[in-house]
Amino acid sequence: MMVRVDLLMSVDGFASTTDQTAENPFGRDRSRLVETYVATRTFREHVFSDSSGTGTTGVDDRYARHYFDGIGAEIMGAGKFGFHAFPEDPDWRGWWGGEPPFRCPVFVLTHRSRPPLAMKGGTNFNFVSANPTDALAQAKKAANGKDVRIGGGPTVVREYLKAGRVDHLHVAIAPILLGRGVRLWNDLRGLDAGYTVDSETAESGTIHLTFRR
Amino acid sequence: MMVRVDLLMSVDGFASTTDQTAENPFGRDRSRLVETYVATRTFREHVFSDSSGTGTTGVDDRYARHYFDGIGAEIMGAGKFGFHAFPEDPDWRGWWGGEPPFRCPVFVLTHRSRPPLAMKGGTNFNFVSANPTDALAQAKKAANGKDVRIGGGPTVVREYLKAGRVDHLHVAIAPILLGRGVRLWNDLRGLDAGYTVDSETAESGTIHLTFRR
Repeated sequence: MMVRVDLLMSVDGFASTTDQTAENPFGRDRSRLVETYVATRTFREHVFSDSSGTGTTGVDDRYARHYFDGIGAEIMGAGKFGFHAFPEDPDWRGWWGGEPPFRCPVFVLTHRSRPPLAMKGGTNFNFVSANPTDALAQAKKAANGKDVRIGGGPTVVREYLKAGRVDHLHVAIAPILLGRGVRLWNDLRGLDAGYTVDSETAESGTIHLTFRR
Repeated sequence: MMVRVDLLMSVDGFASTTDQTAENPFGRDRSRLVETYVATRTFREHVFSDSSGTGTTGVDDRYARHYFDGIGAEIMGAGKFGFHAFPEDPDWRGWWGGEPPFRCPVFVLTHRSRPPLAMKGGTNFNFVSANPTDALAQAKKAANGKDVRIGGGPTVVREYLKAGRVDHLHVAIAPILLGRGVRLWNDLRGLDAGYTVDSETAESGTIHLTFRR
């Protein structure tokens, strides 16, 4: 049972984008960050339910498969769920439509008190105001022996990294410069000391950097 | 004739370190940043005058060779030359001893008025208070058809990148997190648009990222 992170970032280190508008809720920057990932066969199958077999099958797809494999629970911040973008909507159920791709219990860190949301396909959103350690204990229990993913955003991931709770960190670095957004790499001096660090470059130009215990 | 940059940085983007002390003027962080580069056969030959043929000969060495090849002049900031570390020393002649590895005219951007320093081996330090554009014009003329290197630090490099004056940018990313220092990647949104970006990982774990026009 491992605690895992997979994040996308730009060469200049921005793992979350801030150029969302009402017309384009993900932002153009977000689209550029995820494009090689969205192009993979695995992403198309798992997120778009596209079973036509189209999509890339190279190095990026191998990491996309790893992203989905063996996860028993996810922890995410309120921002990733969408509470910051839609603070006034009491019926907000996340960005992912009626059948989110998580297919496991998801623990959303928030001080809002909301009843759990059982979605189609096995995703259960639980809204917890616990501290990160207690939330992780809950997620581990729910994962039932499978891995727990710290799903983001970067601020939540950074908190777990600083606490030494992450066993496996994969960062997919897109060869673009965004110049703005939220950086993962703040105040993480010496993080590498506890890990073996490897990297490889995909056909798309994405650099896959992996920190393993 | 190209304007080129080669920089070393950490995974968290720090291309210059700030942990220098009187006892260790380069800082431990700097040592960690340069260690795979210092280990190459080319670096040993060019900087340590070590012709014994020891040193690594893999991917890192290929980039080290490229660093030294075909450079006709260098531009560097006052900090790289050492004026910030030794502001009171009128006889300061740089970090590199009597025979610096540049072996070409070097233009140090500074408001100090100092006569040129002709060093052994062909390095000529010229102290110029020109703006970056004028300094580049001087360096191009001095390079006599060869390439001009913008040698650093990161603040000087960033200025030339923002002005669109760099034809070839190579960044060697060491798989370490320093957590402090000077970042190259500030305020460079969209830099990739004018370049083809490639990367490869060396045997040492260093990621070599190259931006070519």
